[in-house]
Amino acid sequence: FSTAEIPDDEDTFKILIATDIHLGYLEKDAIRGNDTYNTLNEILQCAKQNEVDFILLGGDLFHDNKPSRQCLHKCITMLRKYCMGDSPVRFEILSDQKVNFNTTQFPWVNYQDENLNISIPVFSIHGNHDDPTGAEGLCALDLLSASGFVNHFGHSHSVEKIEISPILMQKGITKLALYGLGSIPDERLYRMFVNKQVSMLRPKEDQDGWFNLFTIHQNRSKHGPTNYIPEQFLDDFLDLVVWGHEHECLIKPTLNEQQLFYVSQPGSSVATSLSPGEATKKKIGLLRVKGRKMKLQEIPLKTVRQFFIEDVVLADHQDCFTPDTPHVTKKIEDFCFAKVTEMLHEAERERLGCPLTPEKPLIRLRVDYSGGFEAFNTSRFSQKFVDRVANPKDIIHFVRRREQKEIKDENSIDYGKLFKPTAVEGLRVEDLVKQYFEAAEQKVQLSLLTEQGMGKAIQEFVDKDEKEAIEELITYQLRKTQLHLQSRGVTTEQDIDAEVKERAKAHRLERGDGDFADQDVLDVTMDSDEGSVPVAAPTRGRGRGSRGRGGRGRGRGESDKEMQ
Amino acid sequence: FSTAEIPDDEDTFKILIATDIHLGYLEKDAIRGNDTYNTLNEILQCAKQNEVDFILLGGDLFHDNKPSRQCLHKCITMLRKYCMGDSPVRFEILSDQKVNFNTTQFPWVNYQDENLNISIPVFSIHGNHDDPTGAEGLCALDLLSASGFVNHFGHSHSVEKIEISPILMQKGITKLALYGLGSIPDERLYRMFVNKQVSMLRPKEDQDGWFNLFTIHQNRSKHGPTNYIPEQFLDDFLDLVVWGHEHECLIKPTLNEQQLFYVSQPGSSVATSLSPGEATKKKIGLLRVKGRKMKLQEIPLKTVRQFFIEDVVLADHQDCFTPDTPHVTKKIEDFCFAKVTEMLHEAERERLGCPLTPEKPLIRLRVDYSGGFEAFNTSRFSQKFVDRVANPKDIIHFVRRREQKEIKDENSIDYGKLFKPTAVEGLRVEDLVKQYFEAAEQKVQLSLLTEQGMGKAIQEFVDKDEKEAIEELITYQLRKTQLHLQSRGVTTEQDIDAEVKERAKAHRLERGDGDFADQDVLDVTMDSDEGSVPVAAPTRGRGRGSRGRGGRGRGRGESDKEMQ
Repeated sequence: FSTAEIPDDEDTFKILIATDIHLGYLEKDAIRGNDTYNTLNEILQCAKQNEVDFILLGGDLFHDNKPSRQCLHKCITMLRKYCMGDSPVRFEILSDQKVNFNTTQFPWVNYQDENLNISIPVFSIHGNHDDPTGAEGLCALDLLSASGFVNHFGHSHSVEKIEISPILMQKGITKLALYGLGSIPDERLYRMFVNKQVSMLRPKEDQDGWFNLFTIHQNRSKHGPTNYIPEQFLDDFLDLVVWGHEHECLIKPTLNEQQLFYVSQPGSSVATSLSPGEATKKKIGLLRVKGRKMKLQEIPLKTVRQFFIEDVVLADHQDCFTPDTPHVTKKIEDFCFAKVTEMLHEAERERLGCPLTPEKPLIRLRVDYSGGFEAFNTSRFSQKFVDRVANPKDIIHFVRRREQKEIKDENSIDYGKLFKPTAVEGLRVEDLVKQYFEAAEQKVQLSLLTEQGMGKAIQEFVDKDEKEAIEELITYQLRKTQLHLQSRGVTTEQDIDAEVKERAKAHRLERGDGDFADQDVLDVTMDSDEGSVPVAAPTRGRGRGSRGRGGRGRGRGESDKEMQ
Repeated sequence: FSTAEIPDDEDTFKILIATDIHLGYLEKDAIRGNDTYNTLNEILQCAKQNEVDFILLGGDLFHDNKPSRQCLHKCITMLRKYCMGDSPVRFEILSDQKVNFNTTQFPWVNYQDENLNISIPVFSIHGNHDDPTGAEGLCALDLLSASGFVNHFGHSHSVEKIEISPILMQKGITKLALYGLGSIPDERLYRMFVNKQVSMLRPKEDQDGWFNLFTIHQNRSKHGPTNYIPEQFLDDFLDLVVWGHEHECLIKPTLNEQQLFYVSQPGSSVATSLSPGEATKKKIGLLRVKGRKMKLQEIPLKTVRQFFIEDVVLADHQDCFTPDTPHVTKKIEDFCFAKVTEMLHEAERERLGCPLTPEKPLIRLRVDYSGGFEAFNTSRFSQKFVDRVANPKDIIHFVRRREQKEIKDENSIDYGKLFKPTAVEGLRVEDLVKQYFEAAEQKVQLSLLTEQGMGKAIQEFVDKDEKEAIEELITYQLRKTQLHLQSRGVTTEQDIDAEVKERAKAHRLERGDGDFADQDVLDVTMDSDEGSVPVAAPTRGRGRGSRGRGGRGRGRGESDKEMQ
């Protein structure tokens, strides 16, 4: 297919694409409390003004698994205001709706409910923040589903097997197959892909006549060897993947050259961490699909609070000060003051003529004070910007780049301890698992187990005693061992990625080595998953990829991936 | 007006009346978990089958102020299922809807919303369990309101002044003025009535042409001198009061002979405590109003779990055992076993042919073991009924009637300590308040302050330093002092009730002395209010009116008012 211009006509699907709205994030903050509400309002308004056929959300509509009453009330109010009305919905659904919409007693699309006058149907998968919990497996989205305001789809109820059945839609000549998969712990989903437990169903007839759109809410950037979903795992018949969860706006579709599909990563509509990826201009997309052609129009959001981030390396300013300069700490503070003031001016200039943009920007200055400098008192510094910055308390972030390699990551697992050859011999797999968990720090265990269901999945391996499950576990543990070996000197990812490659090859093409491995982890924003496994990422000798700071207690979504 | 037969015709309002559904009560209980859901389903089904014009709920639709996701999901699902559809709503609303429905951005009745196809509008005030909280003053009901499933009315936003504006409805020739007042802490509302801060507005024209229906959710039985709302406080132009909050089903309208209005107390549709009032057969009402005539048809609920309660006084069975009988405790246990078995048989007989009634009944045997008997081991006893009773763990309740007077109520305040003449002289009112709280036990303070806003109201007195507020406080404290004096020997309620009488007199008639003072507190069920002030009720020498057991930790709604 091409990406030529597409007219708005009776054959063209117009789809508003957004993700990670994180409604309710910091709702109690005096300054930023309304940010997410204002932006959802803008997004819905935009959908209405553009007379889209539907809205597609890539998960994390809510920031909290249990949104506050206020948050639900505001969300319901906005959906009722913007998505109900007399404008007719001009596309049909051809697939079995009971299969697509299976989380309420109303297993049909909301706009075909004769008791609801829906003008803009919203289709949403759930994210990791608003994922289903409890015995009933309900998520916050399901309250909106039951009320008829949202069509929650892509909820897989099995941990054994995932079959993704598309919502088959037709508008004029255009046939759209909408696939969705709600958030699943990355490691588990990775494993399920490897074990061929994930399949995407296709319509039996006229397979090539469909535009295949897939929405997913997973790590796209490589946080660990199996803690992300390689694009190559996804079926190559897809045309466009809308990738949620990653907060950096990379909405412009990029071609995956192996699979020959495009990936659009809209990014969050609110910065939930002060990391570089969140500083990218926030946008949503207006996707037009006609026949098998598509065009994605980028729409910058106006209500999003500005966020500026800059790095300062003190050692690079020897003309101004060295650690021996008299009153050097005061000089550094003045230097930073000037920097932040400059950033504020830049923010102000940029905000000119944008009445919807909040006045106070988010400012982050990362100060690398390695080389003998000392940190200054940030609380006094904050005072100076209390009326001008939305985040006065954490403008300055002191980091030490040079020393970083020496810092022992308190969350890291000593794999050497786990897999001593003497220990492995004669032990059953179950014992290995036990040993693994015993050796790992309590903290790491928790971190491993937090992601909902992950612990359960591992438990199942142990309990079930199935041949397949044990094989799988061995693969899993082997991968960890390989990683350990690698961290002792092996610099290629050859072994680690063998399986990934194989899978990709099985699909169609040989694996190129550019897309994931080479990206600069510093520039990749990711949503902070409490449960992501803090293994050292294969860093190709850069030594900057380790995480493990998620437990600092700065609140969910704020564990920046920054220089330390 | 009369209570003659009323035909179902185009002039007749058919209103389903229910209250205190307590949705979600014990939802995690393996046996009773679905009780409230089943009963809401029955109530809504009944409304639909009877083609009522609307449903009127008297508060506490939800048991928890923050209902679980499951609870909200089930509620929304049922409302959407039963209250939406094509049956037309055949009455009009004549009043300003912005005034009546003021808790959402959709200030109009749901059935007139062109985007919602409502067949049965639900009108509800909030109760004390689901009352508004937080800065936004939203309650769980408001989520349903915002979604368009319920019309939440009777929410007064002021603590200074309450003006109750009726929803004016017309069907054919019948004009119905529906008044409502959501739950307010009793003591505060009592005070506001006394201070003439509560008023009910009336239509300007044709005042006598309206049937005036009022829904309120307060203590109706006298829990303390000002901890209830005397019927005499309510305006005499009313025709019918639907009284929520009290759990005993007294749905048959009773005439208040002073005010000449009727009061119907539907009672809860689930037993939230094992007290006698909850054992009354649970019913809802089908109210027909034509012109100024009304008729209330009682509808027994089929899905409600049976509840049997009996009292046993061991000392009354001297033919069977005395404290000196060998193995007396075993004999008592056998005796109780026989009693409970008999009650189970009775339950079984009664349940015959009622497939909707849950199999296991609630059983409570109150055993008065005063006179030298000893309590037996109830956990062993419970084991025997684990498969037959819904509440095996708390079937037996040992009480001591005779010793009760001597039991020092740990929550009671020693008013003597508070108001020593020497202390009162020369102190400012603020000091008195301080002294009052300092002298009272921490526990009592909490109990006093729990009722939402009560503490705030008292704080306001202290802070505002207004002449009126101080006067009011003095009245309030005087009342307590009077009560103290009374507890030392004064047996008439003359002083205490002077104000009540005055108010009633100001209305129309002299106060009769039967309705409230003489009722046997033992037989009055009340919903347990954590915050009700545990003052000794004027007991007329019976010595059984004291409460003060709310803090026993048996959970909200379970602090029975029983013999001890």
